[in-house]
Amino acid sequence: MQVTKIYQKNISIPPKPRGFHLITQLILNALPEIESISIGVCQIFIQHTSASLTINENADSTVRVDFETFFNKTVTENDSDYLHNYEGPDDMPAHIKSSLLGCSVLVPIANGRLSLGMWQGIYLCEHRNHASSRELTITAWGG
Amino acid sequence: MQVTKIYQKNISIPPKPRGFHLITQLILNALPEIESISIGVCQIFIQHTSASLTINENADSTVRVDFETFFNKTVTENDSDYLHNYEGPDDMPAHIKSSLLGCSVLVPIANGRLSLGMWQGIYLCEHRNHASSRELTITAWGG
Amino acid sequence: MQVTKIYQKNISIPPKPRGFHLITQLILNALPEIESISIGVCQIFIQHTSASLTINENADSTVRVDFETFFNKTVTENDSDYLHNYEGPDDMPAHIKSSLLGCSVLVPIANGRLSLGMWQGIYLCEHRNHASSRELTITAWGG
Repeated sequence: MQVTKIYQKNISIPPKPRGFHLITQLILNALPEIESISIGVCQIFIQHTSASLTINENADSTVRVDFETFFNKTVTENDSDYLHNYEGPDDMPAHIKSSLLGCSVLVPIANGRLSLGMWQGIYLCEHRNHASSRELTITAWGG
Repeated sequence: MQVTKIYQKNISIPPKPRGFHLITQLILNALPEIESISIGVCQIFIQHTSASLTINENADSTVRVDFETFFNKTVTENDSDYLHNYEGPDDMPAHIKSSLLGCSVLVPIANGRLSLGMWQGIYLCEHRNHASSRELTITAWGG
Repeated sequence: MQVTKIYQKNISIPPKPRGFHLITQLILNALPEIESISIGVCQIFIQHTSASLTINENADSTVRVDFETFFNKTVTENDSDYLHNYEGPDDMPAHIKSSLLGCSVLVPIANGRLSLGMWQGIYLCEHRNHASSRELTITAWGG
């Protein structure tokens, strides 16, 4: 099959509270052209360094609460060894969480749908206490 | 060069013990069409939230044992702060390990081969004590 | 739009000190063909298991120092439980850091430019005390 199609869309997600948020449906709504791709891949990219994207459990909201618990314990605030501390105690930990989770997810497309597992959803991970809007670039290609 | 080819294959990997397992050869066997691509990219995606994929050292099996040691120490079981605990003590840690490592790897293709470094191999990371089969989607594209 | 273009380039980065280094401009210089792509994606892949790639803050160099601080505290050296220890105390931690951060980043292309956020830069993360050169494969495709 030839790779005859590539689509790209920028979207802005209004400010969300610190924590982990399911955005799978929002992605699908933003790029309905995915439905025209038989075989392909979709990348979702976040243009920030204090928020991130990951794929995880889409059903039980307590999983997302436990993600916040784990990352707060593992990437502690107010570490006196941090040099970059003038943007608040949540700033440097936000950068580190962002790189641990990553700023991009890549999902196969099959028969016009994101080929996610039954329990997989796309998370927007907001690591700042007072976030602004977050800009995402969605790119999908295939045949 | 034009991107004239895209291939996709779903494979099922029989249950593996908890730990880190090399699956590079299994991927190559599953999608021999990679050999027809001069320049391209291959994505391997796992459709689960309690197992993951990563790329690391392919020679010394003790590296894979040490991965299990590190992740067990860093993502502890039986944390009394976890809310999501009804699927067993290994469940919530499995979700977190899955996002720390990621559910997808992306490897360049050159001259019909995965362009991995000499010491790089693809790991299936099984985070559950009693796993079932794991479904992977392999997608390769290029010219 | 059709996916009419795919480019690939291998580059070698001379040895860098242990730590986190901005390489965005180096990537752009290595693959100027990115400028010919209106809509696309660029992957940067490192062919090693003791160095890694990530995207994070591009302005304040103290962020990169704090990354080194965090990862050294979180992935400790000389853990007596490690079996793989004959290449020095920095070796097994380097493998783990490499998988926590990942060996590849993927960036959208729009209008001939990497579509990074204003504060995003590409980091080469060197985890060894005495590194040799690092080989990268850059692949860009689109229309």
